[in-house]
Amino acid sequence: MPGNAFGQAFTFTTWGESHGPALGCVIDGVPPQIPLSEADLQGWLDARKPGQSRYTTQRRESDTVRILSGVFEGLTTGTPVCLMIENEDQRSKDYSDIKDKFRPGHADYTYLAKYGVRDYRGGGRSSARETAARVAAGGVARRVLEQLLSPAPLIRGALVQMGPHRIDRANWDWDQVGANPFFSPDAKAAETWADYLDGVRKAGSSAGAVVEVVAENVPAGLGEPVYDKIDSDLAKAMMSINAVKGVEIGNGFAAAATPGEDNADQMRMVGDAPTFLTNNNGGTLGGLTSGQPVVCRFAVKPTSSITIPRQTVDRFGQEVEVSTKGRHDPCVGIRAVPVGEAMMALVLCDHLLRHRGQTGALGPVTPAFDEN
Amino acid sequence: MPGNAFGQAFTFTTWGESHGPALGCVIDGVPPQIPLSEADLQGWLDARKPGQSRYTTQRRESDTVRILSGVFEGLTTGTPVCLMIENEDQRSKDYSDIKDKFRPGHADYTYLAKYGVRDYRGGGRSSARETAARVAAGGVARRVLEQLLSPAPLIRGALVQMGPHRIDRANWDWDQVGANPFFSPDAKAAETWADYLDGVRKAGSSAGAVVEVVAENVPAGLGEPVYDKIDSDLAKAMMSINAVKGVEIGNGFAAAATPGEDNADQMRMVGDAPTFLTNNNGGTLGGLTSGQPVVCRFAVKPTSSITIPRQTVDRFGQEVEVSTKGRHDPCVGIRAVPVGEAMMALVLCDHLLRHRGQTGALGPVTPAFDEN
Amino acid sequence: MPGNAFGQAFTFTTWGESHGPALGCVIDGVPPQIPLSEADLQGWLDARKPGQSRYTTQRRESDTVRILSGVFEGLTTGTPVCLMIENEDQRSKDYSDIKDKFRPGHADYTYLAKYGVRDYRGGGRSSARETAARVAAGGVARRVLEQLLSPAPLIRGALVQMGPHRIDRANWDWDQVGANPFFSPDAKAAETWADYLDGVRKAGSSAGAVVEVVAENVPAGLGEPVYDKIDSDLAKAMMSINAVKGVEIGNGFAAAATPGEDNADQMRMVGDAPTFLTNNNGGTLGGLTSGQPVVCRFAVKPTSSITIPRQTVDRFGQEVEVSTKGRHDPCVGIRAVPVGEAMMALVLCDHLLRHRGQTGALGPVTPAFDEN
Amino acid sequence: MPGNAFGQAFTFTTWGESHGPALGCVIDGVPPQIPLSEADLQGWLDARKPGQSRYTTQRRESDTVRILSGVFEGLTTGTPVCLMIENEDQRSKDYSDIKDKFRPGHADYTYLAKYGVRDYRGGGRSSARETAARVAAGGVARRVLEQLLSPAPLIRGALVQMGPHRIDRANWDWDQVGANPFFSPDAKAAETWADYLDGVRKAGSSAGAVVEVVAENVPAGLGEPVYDKIDSDLAKAMMSINAVKGVEIGNGFAAAATPGEDNADQMRMVGDAPTFLTNNNGGTLGGLTSGQPVVCRFAVKPTSSITIPRQTVDRFGQEVEVSTKGRHDPCVGIRAVPVGEAMMALVLCDHLLRHRGQTGALGPVTPAFDEN
Repeated sequence: MPGNAFGQAFTFTTWGESHGPALGCVIDGVPPQIPLSEADLQGWLDARKPGQSRYTTQRRESDTVRILSGVFEGLTTGTPVCLMIENEDQRSKDYSDIKDKFRPGHADYTYLAKYGVRDYRGGGRSSARETAARVAAGGVARRVLEQLLSPAPLIRGALVQMGPHRIDRANWDWDQVGANPFFSPDAKAAETWADYLDGVRKAGSSAGAVVEVVAENVPAGLGEPVYDKIDSDLAKAMMSINAVKGVEIGNGFAAAATPGEDNADQMRMVGDAPTFLTNNNGGTLGGLTSGQPVVCRFAVKPTSSITIPRQTVDRFGQEVEVSTKGRHDPCVGIRAVPVGEAMMALVLCDHLLRHRGQTGALGPVTPAFDEN
Repeated sequence: MPGNAFGQAFTFTTWGESHGPALGCVIDGVPPQIPLSEADLQGWLDARKPGQSRYTTQRRESDTVRILSGVFEGLTTGTPVCLMIENEDQRSKDYSDIKDKFRPGHADYTYLAKYGVRDYRGGGRSSARETAARVAAGGVARRVLEQLLSPAPLIRGALVQMGPHRIDRANWDWDQVGANPFFSPDAKAAETWADYLDGVRKAGSSAGAVVEVVAENVPAGLGEPVYDKIDSDLAKAMMSINAVKGVEIGNGFAAAATPGEDNADQMRMVGDAPTFLTNNNGGTLGGLTSGQPVVCRFAVKPTSSITIPRQTVDRFGQEVEVSTKGRHDPCVGIRAVPVGEAMMALVLCDHLLRHRGQTGALGPVTPAFDEN
Repeated sequence: MPGNAFGQAFTFTTWGESHGPALGCVIDGVPPQIPLSEADLQGWLDARKPGQSRYTTQRRESDTVRILSGVFEGLTTGTPVCLMIENEDQRSKDYSDIKDKFRPGHADYTYLAKYGVRDYRGGGRSSARETAARVAAGGVARRVLEQLLSPAPLIRGALVQMGPHRIDRANWDWDQVGANPFFSPDAKAAETWADYLDGVRKAGSSAGAVVEVVAENVPAGLGEPVYDKIDSDLAKAMMSINAVKGVEIGNGFAAAATPGEDNADQMRMVGDAPTFLTNNNGGTLGGLTSGQPVVCRFAVKPTSSITIPRQTVDRFGQEVEVSTKGRHDPCVGIRAVPVGEAMMALVLCDHLLRHRGQTGALGPVTPAFDEN
Repeated sequence: MPGNAFGQAFTFTTWGESHGPALGCVIDGVPPQIPLSEADLQGWLDARKPGQSRYTTQRRESDTVRILSGVFEGLTTGTPVCLMIENEDQRSKDYSDIKDKFRPGHADYTYLAKYGVRDYRGGGRSSARETAARVAAGGVARRVLEQLLSPAPLIRGALVQMGPHRIDRANWDWDQVGANPFFSPDAKAAETWADYLDGVRKAGSSAGAVVEVVAENVPAGLGEPVYDKIDSDLAKAMMSINAVKGVEIGNGFAAAATPGEDNADQMRMVGDAPTFLTNNNGGTLGGLTSGQPVVCRFAVKPTSSITIPRQTVDRFGQEVEVSTKGRHDPCVGIRAVPVGEAMMALVLCDHLLRHRGQTGALGPVTPAFDEN
């Protein structure tokens, strides 16, 4: 596949440009008999939607999703689900400035190098607007997961760092995530970030961020050795989000500095169930889920579209300066939270179906403790 | 594909267990007319081979690679290249200890949960011994890259952190990498690490590490938007290596704390060529290579096989202790260096062929500066 | 991939049901800089469109295709091309008859067996209406082929048998194909078929057919050993068309009765070029194109939707009779001609890009005669 | 994937040349806990093995298969199964004749056109020797099918035509298939063929054939709309066998001449079960299995390696004659019977696992008759 698809059993292909008539995705491999409606998906899109606070781009898009196929009388039929979102606020502005200049940190230069042609309007295909299609697909994945698994997996994300400011993990409260414009689980950090981001915005600068996504109630045994480890597919999924430059599972880079005896998650029995005393490995061992929460973090670089003038060249080989006016997120990491959740749902759904195909089960294939 | 293959145009599938008769890989998609011999591959395998210093496992394997197909009179024929490495030092030891116990931090528990059966001898398929096949495949990828591209890409790796001890980047010297048993580019750090690792080993503990792989002379435009970004595929590739828990490209997690104007790599002309003033993005923009060095780092957790006793359970639901005797690497990160290099070569080779398929070119499809 | 996609380098995924709001496809892997407009595609769709003579279904669809992505200022950009065709004439008729009954020869029973649910309106996903999306995709493939190859491949199809009546090959005239409502290359056969099909239609019966598709100007060397032979992919492509039950390449089944010395295509030099004296192998040898015309034939079974009552059962386990009224093609083989052409174009385009990826060439990789 | 692999859930990749050291395959996606030994596979290989009668090539190969991975203590572990067969009777003969000449009907010319290089020894990768690996993989697929399904599918093949001589279907007796050197289900036809083939052989000619493969006890609902229909994948599978030029399902090409009311398979209830009165569609409807026997036929062209001299050219552009001496099958169709069976098993196994992945079931997902 040429690169715009993800997943092997639950495969979605996205299409569309930032300023084209519409964008969307086709999901091939949706199990049949899953209740699904546009209302099931719209909530997730609304969470990602631009223009909801002064901290995100002011582009106005309702991001209304339509289901064009694969659902009949409220149930999926097992055939491809096509989802479409029409673009509504493509401004017919003058693009002459970015038409010829390569904005530092953007894909302008590399798309031209790859294809010899590019749709420069709003970043074209490289725009983060593409992630709306992922979030829609993620909504379908969530429906599948909750229908097939009991208890249903709980997939939640949060912003844990903005610019240099990290949350205090002692303050973590999932209920706070929806109560501030930053998806912060730490109410206090949200206040700090508000001030910080106002300053960044006024300075014409931008801020990076770190997002954490956690999936609970994931059965043990998902993932495929060796190359399609759950870790590898999560890494690929998260790294495919615009502006992401780092991914870690569990302790991640901190594991490098931890002694082996501290990093290995010890086990005890709790009633009949084997239980881990810690979750340094972030819910995966050997690339397979362990039954513990799957914990994934990713770093989002600061938005490259800033008004502070930067040195660059244009496609005529002239040295120029560029200052990106337009409507942009001062911290794209914020809206990456629902995207990260969607990617987690998509990876888990894909692996659940793959696991079922090979083993016939949705969780551990045999009780681990059936022999003596 | 069920998970033991990697790559879409240059696709390799690995097979084999730690204590089976042999392991190897099949590479489908090798371009024809590439000079290739076993000698071309053996050097890379020797770099990864165990037992070369007191800092790696004492298992004795010559890791001699045989080419079983796809090469005729010294040239690849375009048909699948099968590579085989026979296991030589599988000890017929008593596995009764780890046969039933789940070693903390290992894949023992999750493999059993997934499959209901497992080859417990030396970790079976989850053993890092599988990486020998990757290194062999990576050797083929290197041959392809150097035949197709001029100048040939230069792919090199180094250990940049062991346990809590990082190198001093001011001391970076590629020539040092082959001069110490740690692939350290910093001679001084190598000394520190030697002492540190001796202590770790004596204590029956283990150490994590961070590896950095750099590819130079990579043309601009490789990678596929949106899901098969060069970054995403590198993240997947590196995260698929045993014990890896984090991956970053360029500045990685540090980018989150950097202001936008500092992180965006500005451009100037140097003669006729557009040039970047910095490489914070690690050689990729929008998921495509920019022509700058591709820089990837990954974190390796400390080996889970340690002699310090750890609490665990066995498959009969009994709470037990386990202490892994065997022959193990106190720091698996060391031997991950040649594996990381191999994965970089494999990702680049795969994307080079994919790029050629879609665009007909091996680098930028048109001069970026042909218009005025 | 779960089954609604085709092609590895030029990958298209179709979606949509017969009576849903729309149908379409996403093509991932279109090379950049190919001139493409909706007008380039509409002509092919018009050839397949229903309701153009009394010999095809009277459903009225303009089959107007829209390009939703992947084209900018008249050129493909290398990003996914999404094509959409809105359904216009879904009759809100009473489906109660076929809602519960399994029409003999249809997919009604098997879709229910597979999914436990089905969209019974007009056959849902199993309707031949899906082939409109293929024809649109095939139009894109033709544009790519004609831009990349010179001379451009010439891909044409014809009906060579209707019911028991075959054409006389001595009468073959490509110009006749567009001059009768049957795509017959034999004007005389077209007259016979007209009478025959009128009779079939009046009797409430239906007729099968055989379609032949020929591709000229195809370079030697396309196709991939061993499983993705050009023959295998053509067989798969044609057999995936609704109602197709047989495929042959070149002499096909007749080869079984031919002595070896007659079947092997001998070669001579014509000027500097090696030339074949016959084309019994239909343009392929060892699964790779030989440079001769690629010749593929496929058998289409008679439409299962007939008004003659047939015995069946319903989903409540009752024995019933069914007579399909609706609007149906008395010979679906007719409209399968443009679909077969499209599939030929799609297979060749996919293999052209794959060949280029592996070898760097669009035709023979080296002159076959450069040595002495 | 570049072409040497088949299957999406049960994926096998073959490697090896006719005169290399060995050939084999890797199967990725084998379900765990399937009893498997080399003895389970050897019988199928013996049926295909050369040199068993005067009607097949006299090359002496024991075709002894070794399992190199994926099996532990007699059970599959869910990890890749690598199978290897060492070549034993590669004659170090003088290949100078076929080294430079393009044998008519062979892949000599097209492989050189594709790759610019070829392993001419015994046909290299294009040799039917590759099919030994398929038969081995097919043996694994049979084990999986019989473990997962009850009753186990019964997959059998037979030769139904040799040269111009067809069997009399009234004489069909499966027990005869193993009782003659032609896999003929008609004892009388076997006698005719013996005489016929002796004559062909003495004349230095060769004969084509038609093979029929039937799979019984296949549950309803296997196959994936639209492109991965069970029919399409069977067509691809069979057409990928060396020398195959035509494939049909059920009535195949004969359906084109059959009136719709005769071709549609009517249904009645037999007890609680819906039953078909005929099987004109060969066990598939809409690309999905119907529960009836899956019936597939394929045409094998006469061996191109004949001693009757033929006109050709060499790679220096000289017009020459060629007469293939070597050891060859006068009718390759005979040994294609076990290969066709293997491909049927492989397709069914792959689709069984895919079906289970999407629907969670191994057969019809819900009783078709659960409502009223």
